Amino acid sequence: MEQTIITREFIELLIDLIDNQDAAQILELVKDFHSSDFAALYDELEVEQVRYLLFLLDKETAGDVLVELEDDEREEFLENIPAEEIVEQFINEMDSDDAADIIGDLPEHRQEEILSKIKDLEQAGDIVDLLNYDEDSAGGLMAKEFIRVEEDWNVGHCIEEIRENAEDVEEIYFVYVTDSDNVLRGIISLKTLILNDWNQPILELIDRDVKSVKTDADAETVANIMEKYDLVALPVVDSIGRLVGRITIDDVVDVIREAAEKDYQMISGITSDVESSDKIWPLTRARLPWLLIGLVGGVFGSRVLELFEGELGLYPQLIFFIPLIASMAGNVGIQSSSIIVQGLASNTLGLESTPKKLMKELMVGLMNGIITASLLFGYNMLSDSSMDLTVAVSLSLMSVILFASLFGTMIPLFLNKVNVDPALATGPFITTINDIMSALIYLNIGKIIFEANLF
Amino acid sequence: MEQTIITREFIELLIDLIDNQDAAQILELVKDFHSSDFAALYDELEVEQVRYLLFLLDKETAGDVLVELEDDEREEFLENIPAEEIVEQFINEMDSDDAADIIGDLPEHRQEEILSKIKDLEQAGDIVDLLNYDEDSAGGLMAKEFIRVEEDWNVGHCIEEIRENAEDVEEIYFVYVTDSDNVLRGIISLKTLILNDWNQPILELIDRDVKSVKTDADAETVANIMEKYDLVALPVVDSIGRLVGRITIDDVVDVIREAAEKDYQMISGITSDVESSDKIWPLTRARLPWLLIGLVGGVFGSRVLELFEGELGLYPQLIFFIPLIASMAGNVGIQSSSIIVQGLASNTLGLESTPKKLMKELMVGLMNGIITASLLFGYNMLSDSSMDLTVAVSLSLMSVILFASLFGTMIPLFLNKVNVDPALATGPFITTINDIMSALIYLNIGKIIFEANLF
Repeated sequence: MEQTIITREFIELLIDLIDNQDAAQILELVKDFHSSDFAALYDELEVEQVRYLLFLLDKETAGDVLVELEDDEREEFLENIPAEEIVEQFINEMDSDDAADIIGDLPEHRQEEILSKIKDLEQAGDIVDLLNYDEDSAGGLMAKEFIRVEEDWNVGHCIEEIRENAEDVEEIYFVYVTDSDNVLRGIISLKTLILNDWNQPILELIDRDVKSVKTDADAETVANIMEKYDLVALPVVDSIGRLVGRITIDDVVDVIREAAEKDYQMISGITSDVESSDKIWPLTRARLPWLLIGLVGGVFGSRVLELFEGELGLYPQLIFFIPLIASMAGNVGIQSSSIIVQGLASNTLGLESTPKKLMKELMVGLMNGIITASLLFGYNMLSDSSMDLTVAVSLSLMSVILFASLFGTMIPLFLNKVNVDPALATGPFITTINDIMSALIYLNIGKIIFEANLF
Repeated sequence: MEQTIITREFIELLIDLIDNQDAAQILELVKDFHSSDFAALYDELEVEQVRYLLFLLDKETAGDVLVELEDDEREEFLENIPAEEIVEQFINEMDSDDAADIIGDLPEHRQEEILSKIKDLEQAGDIVDLLNYDEDSAGGLMAKEFIRVEEDWNVGHCIEEIRENAEDVEEIYFVYVTDSDNVLRGIISLKTLILNDWNQPILELIDRDVKSVKTDADAETVANIMEKYDLVALPVVDSIGRLVGRITIDDVVDVIREAAEKDYQMISGITSDVESSDKIWPLTRARLPWLLIGLVGGVFGSRVLELFEGELGLYPQLIFFIPLIASMAGNVGIQSSSIIVQGLASNTLGLESTPKKLMKELMVGLMNGIITASLLFGYNMLSDSSMDLTVAVSLSLMSVILFASLFGTMIPLFLNKVNVDPALATGPFITTINDIMSALIYLNIGKIIFEANLF
């Protein structure tokens, strides 16, 4: 019942057994393993050892493990295995959606080679159909395994149909009802079937208020619908309403998880899906692009300061608060943009118009600006800062917070409008721009106040 | 099939109809509405208008809407409704887990008042039981509505049991098998029941490899198990294995979504679950704490610069690169810590020991450091910077990247070890510390190089 914990000792024992090709002992050792446990072992073993292990497993588990591997791991693993063995050990027992996902990731010539080795022509046909859809669309998420019944059948006929297909369709919670042209008409739950007599016509049992999506609906729309209506399965129809597939909640949970991870990576300045267990070069490569953008921004920032070299020489106290102003602007910018990005992702932005949103954001900025600028004013009064500096710093803090609030709200809204991922406006991009702008604002305000010599 | 789009015109029409108490027209207008659509209207209506609307709806939908409201909205809404009406219109038709969630959020005296008005004593008892569990535990997530059958029954007996409870348990995909002491023995899917004869004993049909959790398992463990094993429902047992409830995937999808949102808020410096449609004060309050921390950090940073006032006067070019060094340190710190935080959240940190992780992080930092520092070196050589400055800046960039990498890796690992949420180490906290440390490193390196007068 507990999740499997893989220890260092366990790995060593397993490697020993694999090297000795002790199949019986290995199978005993991993008998409680789930496919995801095997997948987690990938990093710990050599490719040849993984291969030995996966070919020992029953075909269903072996297929599941292949599905659970990371894309780069799977590519490495399959590289040197003949197409025939891949089909035999992994593809044959797989659901069509998983098979299509795996085959779709391979190079074209490899795809054809593998498809040609699949002996079950229906399965091969299903996979070829699914390969046509974009991976991030309803068509790319759906499986071809479902139970279809017709409107004019009775309960017994439906149950016969389930019986005939029970082996192909692992989990059945609903049957899908179509007319004779295969146009989706509704669903019936297994619960309903079980509660009615065999000779009862299903016509009155059909739940016609069924949600469905077209094949080209994007994955996030699918996830939103399934989440909103608490569905465990969602039928997929073509452009004229004919039933072509079914998406299950477990695939959608992955979509939700991945979308959240993508936004998180974006805000933390990481460009691809890496894990701390990855190797050094992929980790470096995923982090370099944003660092380079930050570097270019920093160089621009240094140019801005250079422009004010004269003033900084005359009023050196201004220097001390450069980092404070820049980092406050960065923080506010991230806060503002992340609220918008999350609102866009979860469809909870509400009905407010853009000007009203900006107005509100300005008010929030004003409140936070007044509070923090007053505190900083008090601090500077208590320490022995000059009045010029005290006023310049607090006024600048106020200004950059307002600027960063507006900017952090507008940029993601604008990106979303022009169909660019608004999450781009979070993380290093927005901090870099705010760094430069805040230095410009601060040093100009400082220059004016010190030169005016008001106090 | 499409998601409902609520327009400004629609709201105005609805408000008009509510103010005229035109029940028939309202019901016609919202006939395709899902509970979440009603919940989304909350912000657009007065409390009294929401009240009129929800009391027009059928009890099941009304209850669902109440579940979908935000916590603060629900509190405001329920405040002035008598306990009797709350029970009558909302609680009676609700599943036990939802009812317990809603009642649990109310003040103690209100809880007792409402519980005393529930006429179905079994329902009241279930709710009281559930109120004992922590909201973020398996006990807090589970519902009491499920079908329990006994090991020595036959298929027909199970179907009779389903029939008797069909009204209370909305969605049934599995029945749970226990012994006569109510200890969980396994599950049987409805598919299996439907495929077998009524007089077949269930003993051989039971899937005994069933996953379950104890009531005190935390919500994230539940989510991980359901995700790992692709489950749509998970039974919950007490400390001696007796079946006490069942968690469904829709509740877990919410857990996954909320956990991801919490980490995202943490890294973006927002302290509570706000949406851009919230009012100004909650939005301000959610953002202020991190800004205050940033402010304190910035003040410390200004003190650090002040310490180097003399050097900055002597070598003013050092000033120009202060923001670049600080922001690069901040970016690297966020990258490192977010990779660890995500690894901890998704249980994918792997088996590497902490020293090995730090070593690898150091290598990644070294690579990124060498690349960015070399580019910056080239830039400074091409512009007319002095050799002292060129060397000082690049060497410092290298050093702060290494420092921020290590620091960003260690802090979340340490927090996790002492049972503090490691996500605390992302966002403004880590950038603030990195700001201060990077200034110290940079100015010391600069001081040494300029004073040594090497070039």
